[in-house]
Amino acid sequence: MKNFTYYQPTRIVFGAGESEKIGTYLSSISRRVLLVYGEGSVIRSGLLERVKNSLDKEGVEYVEMGGVKPNPRLSLVEKGIALVRQHGLDAVLAVGGGSVIDTAKSIGIGVKYEGDVWDFYSKGLVPQETIPVAVVLTIAAAGSECSNSNVITNDYLHLPEKRGINYDVTRPVLAVMDPTLTYTLPAYQTAAGGYDIMAHVMERYFTREEGVDFTDRMCEATLKTVIRALPIALSTPDDYDSRSQLMWASTIAHNDLLSTGRVGDWASHRMAHQPSALYDLTHGAALSIIFPAWMRYVYKSDVKRFAQFAVRVWDVEPDFGDMEKTALKGIERMEDFIRKIGLPLTFTDAGIPYSRFEEMALRATGGDSFKLGAFYPLTSRDILDIYHSVI
Amino acid sequence: MKNFTYYQPTRIVFGAGESEKIGTYLSSISRRVLLVYGEGSVIRSGLLERVKNSLDKEGVEYVEMGGVKPNPRLSLVEKGIALVRQHGLDAVLAVGGGSVIDTAKSIGIGVKYEGDVWDFYSKGLVPQETIPVAVVLTIAAAGSECSNSNVITNDYLHLPEKRGINYDVTRPVLAVMDPTLTYTLPAYQTAAGGYDIMAHVMERYFTREEGVDFTDRMCEATLKTVIRALPIALSTPDDYDSRSQLMWASTIAHNDLLSTGRVGDWASHRMAHQPSALYDLTHGAALSIIFPAWMRYVYKSDVKRFAQFAVRVWDVEPDFGDMEKTALKGIERMEDFIRKIGLPLTFTDAGIPYSRFEEMALRATGGDSFKLGAFYPLTSRDILDIYHSVI
Repeated sequence: MKNFTYYQPTRIVFGAGESEKIGTYLSSISRRVLLVYGEGSVIRSGLLERVKNSLDKEGVEYVEMGGVKPNPRLSLVEKGIALVRQHGLDAVLAVGGGSVIDTAKSIGIGVKYEGDVWDFYSKGLVPQETIPVAVVLTIAAAGSECSNSNVITNDYLHLPEKRGINYDVTRPVLAVMDPTLTYTLPAYQTAAGGYDIMAHVMERYFTREEGVDFTDRMCEATLKTVIRALPIALSTPDDYDSRSQLMWASTIAHNDLLSTGRVGDWASHRMAHQPSALYDLTHGAALSIIFPAWMRYVYKSDVKRFAQFAVRVWDVEPDFGDMEKTALKGIERMEDFIRKIGLPLTFTDAGIPYSRFEEMALRATGGDSFKLGAFYPLTSRDILDIYHSVI
Repeated sequence: MKNFTYYQPTRIVFGAGESEKIGTYLSSISRRVLLVYGEGSVIRSGLLERVKNSLDKEGVEYVEMGGVKPNPRLSLVEKGIALVRQHGLDAVLAVGGGSVIDTAKSIGIGVKYEGDVWDFYSKGLVPQETIPVAVVLTIAAAGSECSNSNVITNDYLHLPEKRGINYDVTRPVLAVMDPTLTYTLPAYQTAAGGYDIMAHVMERYFTREEGVDFTDRMCEATLKTVIRALPIALSTPDDYDSRSQLMWASTIAHNDLLSTGRVGDWASHRMAHQPSALYDLTHGAALSIIFPAWMRYVYKSDVKRFAQFAVRVWDVEPDFGDMEKTALKGIERMEDFIRKIGLPLTFTDAGIPYSRFEEMALRATGGDSFKLGAFYPLTSRDILDIYHSVI
């Protein structure tokens, strides 16, 4: 187990109806906020109106910026920074999922920086401060409501580039999590969000670090929760039990509790970012293609860990004479699960051509001379093989 | 699942050697601290000297107050409050386990209150602020390093009274957790600390709340971690793997993550506080007597939950035709475990007479007309029966 620091100061307010009280919770943090949201659903569902009413009631003023898209764009972040400065706002309220929250986080650090906010993503510049970011969460998926991560796509480049950063300063100060808001999500979004949760756990689970029994078991607990709850949420969208388990699991999956003392891999995320950036493929769907392919490519290098995954997470009966077979059975069970929840397992399933695999593989590593991932460092050549294995 | 708020702002620094750097971590919080510690081991082990050297090196001044005993006393809390005021200190550094940390927390809120600090414990007065409390943890047990709880014994009363409070304001700002500090603990302290961790989880686990699958599984993960690690730590005291798993589990067991959305019971804790207050019985040892007795007294009221506990935590093979038998088997396994780690299962084992059971039972409920616990509300009569069942 590695030494670690853990700092998770986000105040979480969780439960049915809490989103209606956002004004009350926010008013002690700010009285002038930038209200950031997405495109259609938050308006259609009436949530935006209810949030505004709550802000009005508590005397919190706001300037609106809608239009955040999946794989959120740098250009909109810049617009948000300009709005905050122009109107003298002092906090950002994100109403939405990962893309909206990531946009808000990026605005938060951008406002406090005089240069180009993309410097944080492209030059390794470390953000020192942010204006406070608060969240009303509408989907169980990215875990951005408490995480120190955000991912932005630079849409000014000829070939759009998707890049993530991880700094504690970007953790929101407040996350209001109301599982009933996820009742109206399309099934595909629910499924993709659920698989994103699982991927966040699995990136941490596959480690070479020894002496991490506790976080192993916490990872397994989180995965089993999603495996149980997700199919119920898909068949009964207004089932509070499964929706609430998914929402709470999405936060814990990515607030770094599960990576304490471990070194995660994250190659699958970076491999999945490439088709998402080029073809606007939903993050969870990119992961459902890439993650099983990555597992099949690397599992022989650590049969013991993949067998543990199979037995403890997927209830595979151990084949004591053939642990490799046991390990493989776990991957198969996961693929069956992906099929069952309606996500793609191949690029063809997702309608994505394979004309640009070489380009994607090079961008995933950052060039021929670099390797990607900690559990099993991959060359661009390995990544190309992985992409090709799931045409 | 109930609505909840969750706020855990303690900055955690975890790992071998981190305790030596306390001065560096503390210096950004305070330059004048009250240094609180216990009786012998922290001095004998050289830890206190190393902490002081680190403080000196970083220019953090301190006033010392040693002598904290298990079941920490109100009189020493009052002394600490006076020292802080007299020397114009602005933070408390606790070097020790639960008793030392609880003393520090109580001093923290006491300094900011003009009245008698016991008011918070006896009158339900809510503390509004505290001076910052930082911790160097020396035992995996109480979880006080991140919890919102502290328990103090009023030693001015003819019959000493042990009372706990729970307020977010008392959570420490910094917890430095170095598992190597626990290598030299006597086996009995290691065992009692380990069972205390388990009890913190079990108080949360036994709930009537439905729709809490995720926290159920997280509780089970924590219990299984302790069940695996504790016997190793007892047989190989300097095994870093098991010591680090126990220390991290002790924090998570009691920082309220595992009670999110649930209603815990806590009757066993309150029942165990009584013999501890009267006979200075170690907290974990009082719990190892009381908790199995409580389980045997109440399990028939929720066989399903106790069967889940047996199967998922203690690997009991389900008897599908007799879930009551399955449930009972889990309790038996736990009793075997308590024997194996060398803790008492009866008052006689602990050398405690049974002359004052009635008095203890009345104090546990707070009087004949009150009931104790949420999972299975107990009368003083029930408690008396439970005490008598483990003479």
